[in-house]
Amino acid sequence: MELIDGNQIAAALIAELKAEVAQISGRKPCIALVRVGEDPASVSYVKKKEKTAAEIGITSRVILPPVTITPAELFALLDQLNSDPTVDGILVQSPLPKGFDEVAVFRRVLATKDVDGFNTLNLGKIAQEDPSGFVSCTPAGIMELLARSGVDLKGKHVVVVGRSLIVGKPVALLALQKKAGANGTVTICHSQTRDLPGIVRQADVLIAAIGRAEMITADMVKPGVVVIDVGINRLPDPSKKSGFRLVGDVHFPTVSLLASKITPVPGGVGPMTVAMLMKNTVKAFRLQAAH
Amino acid sequence: MELIDGNQIAAALIAELKAEVAQISGRKPCIALVRVGEDPASVSYVKKKEKTAAEIGITSRVILPPVTITPAELFALLDQLNSDPTVDGILVQSPLPKGFDEVAVFRRVLATKDVDGFNTLNLGKIAQEDPSGFVSCTPAGIMELLARSGVDLKGKHVVVVGRSLIVGKPVALLALQKKAGANGTVTICHSQTRDLPGIVRQADVLIAAIGRAEMITADMVKPGVVVIDVGINRLPDPSKKSGFRLVGDVHFPTVSLLASKITPVPGGVGPMTVAMLMKNTVKAFRLQAAH
Repeated sequence: MELIDGNQIAAALIAELKAEVAQISGRKPCIALVRVGEDPASVSYVKKKEKTAAEIGITSRVILPPVTITPAELFALLDQLNSDPTVDGILVQSPLPKGFDEVAVFRRVLATKDVDGFNTLNLGKIAQEDPSGFVSCTPAGIMELLARSGVDLKGKHVVVVGRSLIVGKPVALLALQKKAGANGTVTICHSQTRDLPGIVRQADVLIAAIGRAEMITADMVKPGVVVIDVGINRLPDPSKKSGFRLVGDVHFPTVSLLASKITPVPGGVGPMTVAMLMKNTVKAFRLQAAH
Repeated sequence: MELIDGNQIAAALIAELKAEVAQISGRKPCIALVRVGEDPASVSYVKKKEKTAAEIGITSRVILPPVTITPAELFALLDQLNSDPTVDGILVQSPLPKGFDEVAVFRRVLATKDVDGFNTLNLGKIAQEDPSGFVSCTPAGIMELLARSGVDLKGKHVVVVGRSLIVGKPVALLALQKKAGANGTVTICHSQTRDLPGIVRQADVLIAAIGRAEMITADMVKPGVVVIDVGINRLPDPSKKSGFRLVGDVHFPTVSLLASKITPVPGGVGPMTVAMLMKNTVKAFRLQAAH
């Protein structure tokens, strides 16, 4: 069994981006990070993004509207960032406070600055296999992990468990593309699937994005399977100071004995998402510079 | 075995639309049909669309630019139709002559008038399960055939053979949606799939959109399968005046003996596409009227 080390792969990607950005003379790529409210997880995510940007040499502009901002005011703020030529990428940290229509907010971000890949147009471009679009960071990170671990999906049976808009559907469309590394046969399962074990057991490559702790057990997988575990779940653990430990959607202790390659949780897909956000920001800068 | 009669289902849908349009006082829904060049199949398709529109009471405006039209001139024509408040839907007949970037042309059609559902934004809306978008006519027609034949996909294994942008991918996304009638477990196969028979044999519902005559044979299907055959292929047949006969991607004579329900070719999916185009046009009219 080989561990797919997300920390190591993300670090390599960040080093590459740093070298690339160092070559840019004049204005550096810039990402606007918009966070509304003080959700503790959001505070920590935005800090991590700010820190990684600084490490690469990407300018970040952190914007913290008060939690009392109205949807119309947030739209006005986004319009201003959309038309600002010194801003290349815009990220609106999810979740937004109640009362906001997130899809409408994501749609308001200009498609060419949508480094989070949540704009409807960028979703459509994944289906069209149009490389000018932005792929959202988790599915893009999964494809990068596979590519950098030498996993070619061609002709393989890729089973995606979970049909969410931010992971399951886009990663299924990416695995299906005609480009090198992809060309997988793709099955998408979810809560309504009958005989989930029977289908998961067919997977050459399993992408678990369900959000249920350790749901995929050893009896459900084929020996030699490659496992990408997208889940991040808390399990009570009195032996930890925090009182919990993080586990994925896959029961790592037993499934890892059968897998040929597997991501750990934490330290698998997680670290890739921030790295891919930075990669998208540099891409947005290039696109803007080309115009 | 029950035949899924596309002609009959399309006729029912057309009758419903006719009744609906009759209720509209004042300006009726209008579709612009743009055909460049004299490709015989395109001539016949556009005629059929014109005729069906007339039957329903939808105004059609057939526009026949010369084959010498430049892409820039075609864009200008589309911009004019986009801004014309008396035009609700715009269809650009495919294939366009060589030299045209079809995706760019489809993207030029305003998303709110894109009754063909080929605009990038409308593809993204399928992934988002946003009902304000337009679904392209063949996949929408397939879902309508299934619904009107009493086939609920919930929990069923839907196997789609073919990953095209106009059929395979959108119908997979539709079958996967959380809405009533959908909720299928979806597998998408294609030319790179290993053990196609092994996967097709798992299908509770098989959607064949490969474009290879009679490729799916009886040994590849499970008894009781529901079969939607999207293929329209010509096979040489000296007994016919035309010298050929039309067949689907499924070997009907043998597969129909095992299937619980199956579409014939011709007379299955084909008639539905024009009906769905008209349904989309009425929807575009409603959306425009609501603004």
